[in-house]
Amino acid sequence: MNIRDIANLAGVGVSTVSRVINNKPDVNKETREKVLEVIKETKFVPNNNARNLKKNETNSIGVLVKGVFNPFFTEMIDVISKEISRSSYTMILQHHDYSKKSEIDNLISFIKDKKLQGLICLGGNFIDVNDELFEKVKIPVVLTSVNTTYDRRHINFSTVGIENDKASYISTSYLISIGHRNIAIIIGDVNDYGISGLRMKGYIEALRDNNIPYNKNYVSVGNYNSEGAYNATIELLKKFKEITAIFAISDVMAIGCAKAASDMGLEIGKDISIIGFDGMDVSKFYVPAITTTVQPKEEMAKVSINLLIKLINKEESHKHILLNTYLVKRQSCSKLKILNNKF
Amino acid sequence: MNIRDIANLAGVGVSTVSRVINNKPDVNKETREKVLEVIKETKFVPNNNARNLKKNETNSIGVLVKGVFNPFFTEMIDVISKEISRSSYTMILQHHDYSKKSEIDNLISFIKDKKLQGLICLGGNFIDVNDELFEKVKIPVVLTSVNTTYDRRHINFSTVGIENDKASYISTSYLISIGHRNIAIIIGDVNDYGISGLRMKGYIEALRDNNIPYNKNYVSVGNYNSEGAYNATIELLKKFKEITAIFAISDVMAIGCAKAASDMGLEIGKDISIIGFDGMDVSKFYVPAITTTVQPKEEMAKVSINLLIKLINKEESHKHILLNTYLVKRQSCSKLKILNNKF
Repeated sequence: MNIRDIANLAGVGVSTVSRVINNKPDVNKETREKVLEVIKETKFVPNNNARNLKKNETNSIGVLVKGVFNPFFTEMIDVISKEISRSSYTMILQHHDYSKKSEIDNLISFIKDKKLQGLICLGGNFIDVNDELFEKVKIPVVLTSVNTTYDRRHINFSTVGIENDKASYISTSYLISIGHRNIAIIIGDVNDYGISGLRMKGYIEALRDNNIPYNKNYVSVGNYNSEGAYNATIELLKKFKEITAIFAISDVMAIGCAKAASDMGLEIGKDISIIGFDGMDVSKFYVPAITTTVQPKEEMAKVSINLLIKLINKEESHKHILLNTYLVKRQSCSKLKILNNKF
Repeated sequence: MNIRDIANLAGVGVSTVSRVINNKPDVNKETREKVLEVIKETKFVPNNNARNLKKNETNSIGVLVKGVFNPFFTEMIDVISKEISRSSYTMILQHHDYSKKSEIDNLISFIKDKKLQGLICLGGNFIDVNDELFEKVKIPVVLTSVNTTYDRRHINFSTVGIENDKASYISTSYLISIGHRNIAIIIGDVNDYGISGLRMKGYIEALRDNNIPYNKNYVSVGNYNSEGAYNATIELLKKFKEITAIFAISDVMAIGCAKAASDMGLEIGKDISIIGFDGMDVSKFYVPAITTTVQPKEEMAKVSINLLIKLINKEESHKHILLNTYLVKRQSCSKLKILNNKF
């Protein structure tokens, strides 16, 4: 039962029903009574959000997803989609690839084309955005899982995420603490300044704080998928036999990395230590289970969509939320017994 | 550059631009020339689909996803979303859980609420639908990955899928051919009559054709996730020590199953054979790699969306497309050397 059904039953136009519901003038007494009677009979409850809609506004929330297929984001999309289905909004999903094109321009054209009421961006290179840029954006935007360099001084947009650099620092420090010094890193995408960039930063800082020289040859790109990480690992291990640990910045890449090591005759968690990121199910159910940083995916998705809906309804102002992560130590990492000759 | 921009530049209304583009009367010569000049200057190409839109129609395509989070569907959503982004359509995504509620009612209310132009259903219990039911549906619908019991006699809807029962028959027969007789099956959801039902059917038929009695105790439910399959496997293997092979009807469940077997001290591909379904990356990158039936996910997604767009544009009539699958034999299955005492 919606406003159109009421209009049909009352034999009037949708705008008349709308005027009655919102107590607007210019409806004659008889018509008004007729509409109210139908509303009463049908037990119709006017939708609050719909009532707040101005003419020509839709009730659509956009979700803009960055990068190639990433199961981490798709699990979040799943949660966001269910939350949106429960509300009176419609979810419009759009993907775009990594590119150097301005994220803000992307975002504004998406909002305009689809007449959005609010937008969540999953991932993306928002490293240099500021309040001025967001002044051009007329609707609430929540940047989720982009990066963590924003704070309450930024009042024109919201962010929900984790401390990527800190989490990555902890992962790398853990590998160092169990004796590894020749630690390779497999990042997602060279153009991914947000997530890959911040995780690289944490990795480099942990090395530096432990007086381990940063070796750029130990950095490889896995394109956020298992196949890419598999190929990157084969190449790394062939070229640099001294590598004893690999930090893949996503679990999907970590399994490609583990498979490659296994195919090269190395025993995972013994001959080579592997660490992932994200806390995907696959890290838990792999044999051996893979050490990883667990991100609160579901919470991140729920916090983002609930904040966005409150922003749309003007019940909340923009904020920057950091969620906690934790390192889960599993069998894929072990103490380095024989220190590498090089050191 | 869209029709609104042209209208602004020409200083006229959107409807006037539309009338000019579509060669409709009631536009004075001067205005018409002005609009055409702007179109020429801006090199604006009117969008064909937008031109075909009747008043009050949106250009939205709905994607209705059935069941809990399923990475198989999310990979397809990814492809569909990219194809839709390339077209002039907007993608509206909605999830719903398994329930006994009529799929057709679900579908009709989604179409009405969102004023869709076309719809793809991913999964769902469309086991008993017929042309009469689809007469109530006024827009083209493509049922993807639901089941395979429809043929060209059904002219009011389209289907794109695989022969689930046949593929499952082949998987089970393969396990039998390498000596297994006590084969358990882990299905997705008890209410999933489509996929789980058909894969069960193939499994039972393969047993029957090989004179192996069907044992309903060997059937368990894994809820299409790794955790569920892990728990189901632990229980199966504790209760029925004679089981030598497990067929999990999705790869996501197969890894939970493999992990459970490993945790119980069994060597996968030696003490126990495990077979999955779907051909997800994880089956390839697991250690050991998991035997599975590869479904052409990307092709299935592309064929579905391209067919739907053609149906919307009336360039095609409804059809039923079956795509090929193939069994990939990997290390998770091996020949049973010692025949079980029971047989």
